[in-house]
Amino acid sequence: MASDGSGGPGALRHAVLGAGEVGTGWAALAAAHGRRVALYDPDGAALERAVAAVRARVERLVQAGFAETGPAAAGLAELTPCSTLADAATDADLIVDASPEALNGKRQLLAAAESAAGASAAGASAILATTSSGLHASELSRGLARPERLIVAHPLVPVELIPVVEVVPGPDTAPDVVGSLRAELASLGRVPIVLRREIAGNAVGRIAGAVWRECIDLVLDGVLDPADADQLVSLGPCVGWAAGGPHLTYELAAGSAGLPGFLDHLLPTFEGWWRELSTRATLSEDERARLGAAVAAAYGNRREVLRAARDERLAALVRVLGERPTG
Amino acid sequence: MASDGSGGPGALRHAVLGAGEVGTGWAALAAAHGRRVALYDPDGAALERAVAAVRARVERLVQAGFAETGPAAAGLAELTPCSTLADAATDADLIVDASPEALNGKRQLLAAAESAAGASAAGASAILATTSSGLHASELSRGLARPERLIVAHPLVPVELIPVVEVVPGPDTAPDVVGSLRAELASLGRVPIVLRREIAGNAVGRIAGAVWRECIDLVLDGVLDPADADQLVSLGPCVGWAAGGPHLTYELAAGSAGLPGFLDHLLPTFEGWWRELSTRATLSEDERARLGAAVAAAYGNRREVLRAARDERLAALVRVLGERPTG
Repeated sequence: MASDGSGGPGALRHAVLGAGEVGTGWAALAAAHGRRVALYDPDGAALERAVAAVRARVERLVQAGFAETGPAAAGLAELTPCSTLADAATDADLIVDASPEALNGKRQLLAAAESAAGASAAGASAILATTSSGLHASELSRGLARPERLIVAHPLVPVELIPVVEVVPGPDTAPDVVGSLRAELASLGRVPIVLRREIAGNAVGRIAGAVWRECIDLVLDGVLDPADADQLVSLGPCVGWAAGGPHLTYELAAGSAGLPGFLDHLLPTFEGWWRELSTRATLSEDERARLGAAVAAAYGNRREVLRAARDERLAALVRVLGERPTG
Repeated sequence: MASDGSGGPGALRHAVLGAGEVGTGWAALAAAHGRRVALYDPDGAALERAVAAVRARVERLVQAGFAETGPAAAGLAELTPCSTLADAATDADLIVDASPEALNGKRQLLAAAESAAGASAAGASAILATTSSGLHASELSRGLARPERLIVAHPLVPVELIPVVEVVPGPDTAPDVVGSLRAELASLGRVPIVLRREIAGNAVGRIAGAVWRECIDLVLDGVLDPADADQLVSLGPCVGWAAGGPHLTYELAAGSAGLPGFLDHLLPTFEGWWRELSTRATLSEDERARLGAAVAAAYGNRREVLRAARDERLAALVRVLGERPTG
């Protein structure tokens, strides 16, 4: 199960289940690092589009310096679109569920994948990783013969560019599954962060949910339009936190006094904000329509231009951070 | 009141009140762009340290390509430490309150500054800007003869590096004050974002409060230690949002389906998270001690090394974003 990071002997063979945005990104990332990738989707047209997208994304990763020519060519040569789950899962070392976020659908798919993989010798020890952002191994393992092989590996979108993958073992997950997945992700140039236990939203969902909830309220309350809110978040707190996370930021914000000095000075201010933050738990049909209209007014009909610009900014930011350690 | 961005005739003269982290950063930013800066602090030792820090920061801004040699030298030549408020405020076009976050102290300082500035012809039309993160013009203007000249200009720390300054006019603020401040900030290389009305925490405080609250809970609940939480935020959602804010991110996350498609797919997941997010309104003495100990264990005794590394990462990120428009 060891990986040498170049797709040589010992590198994991990935089976990616689902050819949507996450599955496409995962397949591109793994293929770019020389992994043998089998990509499964029951929708033939979606699968065809995804294979073309994987090829384009691998090329961009090489151009951006995130992958090397040799392994990427080897990975692309072995990229195998599969119209059946059995074709994809047989002989895979790492089965990656990238299907839509639905409990029953995922349970059925994971059980079918486990069964298909179990037909081979390697399959019995395959890792079942789900990219779910919100469902946990403890919920998804029902019906599995080997629940100890299941783990959450939640990447952000675009998968091949954002370094963090949050890794969430369930109570039944075997320690060697955590270790092998962590090593494989590191070998793919990722930064795996392992959560000590399952928690609603994991860490990324809680951060994302909290930020987006405030942004939605700012837009719906008429304080900022979506483009100004985005720019404020991007070029304000987020560029700061991308350079150093919140704890480090506040540890450094009060000169030589550190976090205790920061709290002496600003905890009452934060406590005042905490009392006033959004308590939104739903988005009504009307609010949803208003938000959609505001976002369309800000960005409508320029999605592909904006995506290309975003991806270029993101690649450059990731390169900067990869070249400069936190100290 | 117009500025030519190089400190020549017409450039604003800044009086910065308070030589802490924010005042030092503001003075460095303005001096680096050739502005005449008077820096006031009643604490002579703090003032002396701040002047040395301003010189060092201006040099770093020039080295990093954020300021030009000529204007920076001119700005530093005119940098004037002032031990009295009157010396600083007289003849200033833009008076920047960077005093500690305390309502009564700020009211007294602003009234005294207005009075000192009023002694000169220019002073009567001076802008009074407060860098307060949490107090509003409507609260701080009590006791001012010209409340229409007061406005919030809240920069993030480090002031000279993070582009966004949130600008919050009060109900009495004159439109020309908004316009002049906005132009001056843009001329200093900032990205001013104007809020349409006062709201608790403004936009930055709400985002910062929401994110830090989740991070504190993750640490205090034992899900992640502070360094892992920081890395997850930095190299996960924040590097993504630094490339494109939350609305744009979700507009792009669902392929060609845009935000409506994203909501179809993931609104139930977000609504589930919103119900579970932290409702923390305070940090007890015990929690504060535990958080402080966890952060000290992660980062203790390396503050200056970490600060230098953070500033270098931040400068590189800001350069990347400045060179690459959002599209």
